[in-house]
Amino acid sequence: MTVTTVPLRLEPDRLLPVEPEVRVIARRLYDVVRDLPVVSPHGDVDPRVLLDDEPFADPATLLVTSDREVTRLLHASGVPLDRLGVGLDSSSEAGSLSETQARAVWRAFCEHWDVFRGTTVRLRTEYQLVEIFGVALRPSPHTADTMFDRIAERLRRPEYRPRALYERFRISVLATRDDACSDLQVHAALEADPSWPGRIIPTFCPDAYLEPGPGWTARVARLGQAADVDVGDYPGFIQALERRRRFFIEHGATSTVHTHPDIRTDRIEPSEANRIYQAALSDEATASEAEAFRRHMLGEMARMSCDDGLVMVLHTGVRRQDPPTAEWLAPDSGVTAPVEVTDALRPLLERYGTHPNLHLVVFTADEAAWSRELAPLASRYPSVYLGVPRGPDTLRRFRAATTETAGFSRTCGGADDARAFCSVPARHDIARRVDAGVLARLVAEDRLEEDEAIETAVDLVIDQPRRVFKLAPFTLPGQRGR
Amino acid sequence: MTVTTVPLRLEPDRLLPVEPEVRVIARRLYDVVRDLPVVSPHGDVDPRVLLDDEPFADPATLLVTSDREVTRLLHASGVPLDRLGVGLDSSSEAGSLSETQARAVWRAFCEHWDVFRGTTVRLRTEYQLVEIFGVALRPSPHTADTMFDRIAERLRRPEYRPRALYERFRISVLATRDDACSDLQVHAALEADPSWPGRIIPTFCPDAYLEPGPGWTARVARLGQAADVDVGDYPGFIQALERRRRFFIEHGATSTVHTHPDIRTDRIEPSEANRIYQAALSDEATASEAEAFRRHMLGEMARMSCDDGLVMVLHTGVRRQDPPTAEWLAPDSGVTAPVEVTDALRPLLERYGTHPNLHLVVFTADEAAWSRELAPLASRYPSVYLGVPRGPDTLRRFRAATTETAGFSRTCGGADDARAFCSVPARHDIARRVDAGVLARLVAEDRLEEDEAIETAVDLVIDQPRRVFKLAPFTLPGQRGR
Amino acid sequence: MTVTTVPLRLEPDRLLPVEPEVRVIARRLYDVVRDLPVVSPHGDVDPRVLLDDEPFADPATLLVTSDREVTRLLHASGVPLDRLGVGLDSSSEAGSLSETQARAVWRAFCEHWDVFRGTTVRLRTEYQLVEIFGVALRPSPHTADTMFDRIAERLRRPEYRPRALYERFRISVLATRDDACSDLQVHAALEADPSWPGRIIPTFCPDAYLEPGPGWTARVARLGQAADVDVGDYPGFIQALERRRRFFIEHGATSTVHTHPDIRTDRIEPSEANRIYQAALSDEATASEAEAFRRHMLGEMARMSCDDGLVMVLHTGVRRQDPPTAEWLAPDSGVTAPVEVTDALRPLLERYGTHPNLHLVVFTADEAAWSRELAPLASRYPSVYLGVPRGPDTLRRFRAATTETAGFSRTCGGADDARAFCSVPARHDIARRVDAGVLARLVAEDRLEEDEAIETAVDLVIDQPRRVFKLAPFTLPGQRGR
Repeated sequence: MTVTTVPLRLEPDRLLPVEPEVRVIARRLYDVVRDLPVVSPHGDVDPRVLLDDEPFADPATLLVTSDREVTRLLHASGVPLDRLGVGLDSSSEAGSLSETQARAVWRAFCEHWDVFRGTTVRLRTEYQLVEIFGVALRPSPHTADTMFDRIAERLRRPEYRPRALYERFRISVLATRDDACSDLQVHAALEADPSWPGRIIPTFCPDAYLEPGPGWTARVARLGQAADVDVGDYPGFIQALERRRRFFIEHGATSTVHTHPDIRTDRIEPSEANRIYQAALSDEATASEAEAFRRHMLGEMARMSCDDGLVMVLHTGVRRQDPPTAEWLAPDSGVTAPVEVTDALRPLLERYGTHPNLHLVVFTADEAAWSRELAPLASRYPSVYLGVPRGPDTLRRFRAATTETAGFSRTCGGADDARAFCSVPARHDIARRVDAGVLARLVAEDRLEEDEAIETAVDLVIDQPRRVFKLAPFTLPGQRGR
Repeated sequence: MTVTTVPLRLEPDRLLPVEPEVRVIARRLYDVVRDLPVVSPHGDVDPRVLLDDEPFADPATLLVTSDREVTRLLHASGVPLDRLGVGLDSSSEAGSLSETQARAVWRAFCEHWDVFRGTTVRLRTEYQLVEIFGVALRPSPHTADTMFDRIAERLRRPEYRPRALYERFRISVLATRDDACSDLQVHAALEADPSWPGRIIPTFCPDAYLEPGPGWTARVARLGQAADVDVGDYPGFIQALERRRRFFIEHGATSTVHTHPDIRTDRIEPSEANRIYQAALSDEATASEAEAFRRHMLGEMARMSCDDGLVMVLHTGVRRQDPPTAEWLAPDSGVTAPVEVTDALRPLLERYGTHPNLHLVVFTADEAAWSRELAPLASRYPSVYLGVPRGPDTLRRFRAATTETAGFSRTCGGADDARAFCSVPARHDIARRVDAGVLARLVAEDRLEEDEAIETAVDLVIDQPRRVFKLAPFTLPGQRGR
Repeated sequence: MTVTTVPLRLEPDRLLPVEPEVRVIARRLYDVVRDLPVVSPHGDVDPRVLLDDEPFADPATLLVTSDREVTRLLHASGVPLDRLGVGLDSSSEAGSLSETQARAVWRAFCEHWDVFRGTTVRLRTEYQLVEIFGVALRPSPHTADTMFDRIAERLRRPEYRPRALYERFRISVLATRDDACSDLQVHAALEADPSWPGRIIPTFCPDAYLEPGPGWTARVARLGQAADVDVGDYPGFIQALERRRRFFIEHGATSTVHTHPDIRTDRIEPSEANRIYQAALSDEATASEAEAFRRHMLGEMARMSCDDGLVMVLHTGVRRQDPPTAEWLAPDSGVTAPVEVTDALRPLLERYGTHPNLHLVVFTADEAAWSRELAPLASRYPSVYLGVPRGPDTLRRFRAATTETAGFSRTCGGADDARAFCSVPARHDIARRVDAGVLARLVAEDRLEEDEAIETAVDLVIDQPRRVFKLAPFTLPGQRGR
């Protein structure tokens, strides 16, 4: 362990290719996109943060406790959850630590800074420390208190409030993730606030309503109430979903998001769908009936998208782990089972794959599927787009695996998937640097001219996410454009 | 979009490694293999092109309409199929567009040149434009007509007729892909033509006869007729296949090709095979019986190969997508499901894996199988060879994934899989450049001496495909050698 | 083929990155770790070699016949097994070739030196030839006899005896792999030998006792005898395993190793376990009962590890191929089926995943699982560590696939898995070089400071394997430390 205070450097050329001939091209490309606005059509920031515009609580809550990728690796490294301010009930995650607690959490983080070597979350944290908070010290037991004090001091300043940061981050649009029954009142309040110049759009999340199982009857009842529709039968259920989608669209939504164990889309007959629906309402559907219903409904979501134009975002293969310590360890994220896409999506694609209104953005952490299935599908179906991953080496592999077949125009970046608001610019900066490097390498290998590379770099940052996520038609006068 | 006419450059060092120290070695290796003959033992060019030796129709038919990788990505990018000269019936694919239609197709292609950035098909197209047709302009709306005119003018010249190009491409042998019932009369006519100095060999394709299902009875009847054998029972069916293989060998074939949903080779007893065969003839076999029969027959193909020496080429995991627009979107290609090889091939390998007559060349687009199963199998069984992929980054990954375990000698390149005749030299050139880079990197990392790298580079181009595809023993006097 | 005698060069910078800017950093990092001790907590060397300390037999037995990776690729290249000194019965593998036979085997190896180009086994063999035996000639028919003579001459010298080499290799600890019933008398004899300054520790291998099937009843009886426990019922069986583990711990073991077709860990009730156990003893368990029992028992091994602290090493997806020529072709190794980890380990991890005593080291050759499942699991569960692969390009891919999510500290190197004693230092040297290159690249991309890279490089070599394999607490006074 280093025992003295050392500076934390953030080199201007970080993440760019190491070969001098390539780096010089990459730097030119990066310079073009570095300061472009952030288009973020797929994320998970709490919109209340921007409505309330309260100062962030403290350095530990902001940079440690509320970032699951930080707390996970610390937990894996033997730091107990309570030393990280993470409680067993999710309410405490929002967290309001006492200063003593916050300092202890921050210290635990600084003591284990070494476990983050080489990780993506370290890159993001460094960006936040140096670029956002101007604290250029390497975390360590020796610097923990100084760092805490300096960041805490910044957080009290008006220019570190969420809305000021939103401006400073040059965010053009930011999407949240919202339960299908949400009243979207935070979004409505922001829309109604004349002092709010930004654009926060909701995303329709119907997962819980498409998976019969424990608690489903109550969820469906809530859905019917929210939609003001009698959901006593399957047609009513469908109508309720359609109405809720319309409500979301009225509040600016341009997309839906779907995270199930698989993305099969096998259809069942309406009468059979109704039969299972009724059985599920009485909690009498078997597991395989519930599964069949969920798969059928994913296809129905595509049908609705053909009607109302909402972009479908699919996450595939996500598995949950439920260790005794905490649900906290894994929900909604990261541990992925082997994925099969082609047969799974066949029923959907045969029916809707060439419909002009349909946009599917498919994400998977099973990299084997990228070149095997996803790039070939995206190079055939006008509706299929590839979701772009976030880690720098992962993104390089993604480009190498998909570009030869599908080019750049069938992929969609910008989807930062951020929960932590202050991590948004770091996520986009990493993608811009890596894509600059990828394009520079194609130029250096004489596969692309530099003017084409520049145009592509800008496309990937601005035009591609706007087009794929249909952001333009939803831009109201007075909202920011590019 | 660039709005002026810009040149299309084809740099001599394209695709070679970017590090100057490695590039200089790679250039030396590439210089050794650049002008070597093309050995193409596995492709899909229509032999009539070379028998008739007619001028190619027009630039659009040649470079756009007849190249599925071009039309696919254009279709995915929103260009309707009819704007590409692709009809819904396959007959029109062969295409005879009017000049107005051809110009419109060409223009659509040029307008969407940007979607090909970074793709393999762009590399091939650039090669054809500049190296073959000498048209060094970047496709764009501004250059479309000029380019069309220049290529069309070339196509009218005698030196751009197929046989002249065959010579110019330095093709040593070219394989076609032929239905097991084919009378091979085009091949026979070429053999009989004293003015034809080349070597076009057929490949035995029995897939349709090994998969009971709709139309199978008629197919089997045709097979019996072609072989002049009574196929009323299973032994007759087997004999018919053996006879057709012999017929193919007499016309120069050295290999068979197999593309099924999986490559399982589980055996069934002859009596059971006969029972299913009879049931299938009456269209009464179940789906699982049909599957069992097909898997059994793949093993039988290996047995026949031990007897008659034909090399077996296996493509694994291929899935078909049938969207409403066109069967055109996907047949026979590209979208691959997850693959399992070890258990699938076990029955075949336990029986025939060390037979001196058996050569299996296994291709898969499921890259995960390369290091996991295929390289280990090829490093154990003298019969197993790895089919080499075609995209430059994909080929680099293939070498990285397989060489450590299986070296270079257990792989087989040359299999360009080309349908479009004029794309053949580009495909081989890409492989030569990439392999030169791979070998140069091994030299630069002090893992290989340069003299060994040179020898290996030549092996991969000439000796390895000749040996693996058993081309030498089939070379008649007067035919070209290396 | 080169026809003259050429030297075999072993460049000091081999395997380091080719870019000069990165290489210079990598060289500094490598210099720090090059001469550190070898910590080898997971291997398969025969401990008798070190107990007896007899001179190695001859060059062919040492470098060819006893190295399966060498003989496999030669066999795949058409060299009959008997020309390699490999008999069909495994006893002859230990081999005592006559000098004539040994020279012939060596010559066959030298004649086929070209098939090893680019392979990991060539890197290891070169290291042994040049670094250990000082024979710097490229193997070829022209050098075969000279090389044989020179190596044979070295092998007769006292400084080439196993114990002398153990010292020269700077081995700190070396693990063997031992049947769960082993009396460990070789280990005991080494412990009792005052002239033996090294540390050889056994590893508990219970696979054969956890998989009911042919011969299982006799195996279980042997287990009962070895443990001196009545294994007539399931509790007795459990007790016997626990006792044997304790016996292994008393003889220095710190880990167990598990190699089954999958790593599912579904639990069954004790009464059901007992029922299947009884059925299996009478050879009446069905295949699926046997499978359920094995999966349950893998979970039981974890429970025992929570109790007694033994580290669990899991190899996943290994498949055996049994061609007619020889079982020799594949047992225990290399050919891997597609792997699923998350659902497989769920029952184990939900129960024991955060237990402080549990260390799981998971190896798989299915690279798709690295980023998809293993790195995410290791970044969540304090018990999960990633086993590090051995080929240089494979190791680079492993670091690229796992570091962004799990960092370096959740991985465990040192596990050389060597059978051939003289290959041990080469294996560790390759890992040190590659990791130096990986870390240097992070430094060159400004993702890591050089002091952090140095610390990490040392950790990976020394501290990480010692900590993960719990080597320290088991070090008795007088044994070597780092």
